[in-house]
Amino acid sequence: MDPIAPPPEHPPHDRPCVILDQPQLAENIGAVARVMANFGLDELRLVRPRDGWPQDRAWAAASGAVWPLDRAKVFPSVEAAIADMRLVYAATARPRETALPVHTPREAAANLRRAVADGLPTAILFGAERAGLETMDIALCNAILTMPIDPGFRSLNLSHAVGVAAYEWRVVEMGEAPPAFRDRAPPADQAVMMGLYEHLEAELEISGFFHPPEKKPAMIRNLRVAMGRARFTDQEARTFRGVITALVKGRGRTLERLARRREGNKQED
Amino acid sequence: MDPIAPPPEHPPHDRPCVILDQPQLAENIGAVARVMANFGLDELRLVRPRDGWPQDRAWAAASGAVWPLDRAKVFPSVEAAIADMRLVYAATARPRETALPVHTPREAAANLRRAVADGLPTAILFGAERAGLETMDIALCNAILTMPIDPGFRSLNLSHAVGVAAYEWRVVEMGEAPPAFRDRAPPADQAVMMGLYEHLEAELEISGFFHPPEKKPAMIRNLRVAMGRARFTDQEARTFRGVITALVKGRGRTLERLARRREGNKQED
Repeated sequence: MDPIAPPPEHPPHDRPCVILDQPQLAENIGAVARVMANFGLDELRLVRPRDGWPQDRAWAAASGAVWPLDRAKVFPSVEAAIADMRLVYAATARPRETALPVHTPREAAANLRRAVADGLPTAILFGAERAGLETMDIALCNAILTMPIDPGFRSLNLSHAVGVAAYEWRVVEMGEAPPAFRDRAPPADQAVMMGLYEHLEAELEISGFFHPPEKKPAMIRNLRVAMGRARFTDQEARTFRGVITALVKGRGRTLERLARRREGNKQED
Repeated sequence: MDPIAPPPEHPPHDRPCVILDQPQLAENIGAVARVMANFGLDELRLVRPRDGWPQDRAWAAASGAVWPLDRAKVFPSVEAAIADMRLVYAATARPRETALPVHTPREAAANLRRAVADGLPTAILFGAERAGLETMDIALCNAILTMPIDPGFRSLNLSHAVGVAAYEWRVVEMGEAPPAFRDRAPPADQAVMMGLYEHLEAELEISGFFHPPEKKPAMIRNLRVAMGRARFTDQEARTFRGVITALVKGRGRTLERLARRREGNKQED
């Protein structure tokens, strides 16, 4: 294989990042890098690759498209891998499990292009070869990308899924760039959203909201999905943390008021 | 691998045939069969496969999509393989060599769909992994299908080329309207949302959240806009009313707990 020059430097966040959750086969990671390079993507993140990282077989399978592999970053969780992202698509064939909007690869590419035009960091998250994505990880994303697969044969190779998504990105990228719009502040990154979720969930735990306990994971997932769809700005995320604090502090204020009333009652009684 | 039922019988020529000219690796032929099945194609023709035919490694690589392989026909030449076809696209990255029209995968899929609607047998011809198609064979075709590849890295895997073409066929075949929201519940009506907003705002009022008072209208507007963007379902709106109640009721629980602690303190002091 002739050495191939990596693509020229480009500004950060001007194209989506590809995130593979718990990929199993190094050959597939290499094939993903190759098809990413075919369609102009180069940022690859890996969440807990099954056989560790780096692996020679990935480089061997990339047919010379080594730069996404050379620069790949490894993360301990989906949460960590998407922490700095402001639009994340979950690629999954099972869109019924959540209340996130479900988009075709084409619609997803158009939305990613708009977000990139606004300067936002974006990513597409792909699950493991067999298991796919866990519902809890999907709940951290903003929307679902689903392939128009024949229901008679759903077993799509990981690199083919990445290939179709990357191809649609490339088609949009080569076409007319849709006008960047809005003077709205950008959506908060996923780390800020996690802070909001965990704040709310901790207070709901104290309040006894999660019952029966076995339903707690599903309840948390539903809350996160519903809030994630709103794509809060940083300011809005802060505001809603203030809302939670105010509602909870109300406890203290009510307490004071009740205490004062009791004192009053005692004196008046 | 569980046995997978082949797709039901369908009329002849109601979808394009995939023709591979002199494919080298049996694994690639299997991967082609798999991605054909993903996107609803099933007729495969092989022109002089390098290592002969059949080959076990093709079946092993197909992940259960064996029917295109079981039924694959072998031909001695491109000419023989396309003899009965009435619209043939040559998939090639070097469109300048001939005077044939050059189409994107999307345009090609639309044209193939039109030809199929006219009852015509159609095919897409792919060249060998390294060499691609010979100019003499391209000249037998009616048009060129070319991928929007990044010129910096043109080495597209054979099965990925077939995958993109088959994907575009599938998109056209499924029609323009993508199933965006499926069985997701519709957004709640505005009366339900008003109920949620007013519930929250009343509790925030009690909690002293709205200060300074002159900013209250803007604060309310911002909260409503941020929540409105999520487009809650009826169920989600009920859930968030439950969240508010739980956070506020926490007051009562905290009150009880504090009261009990005070009682305890009194006894212990």
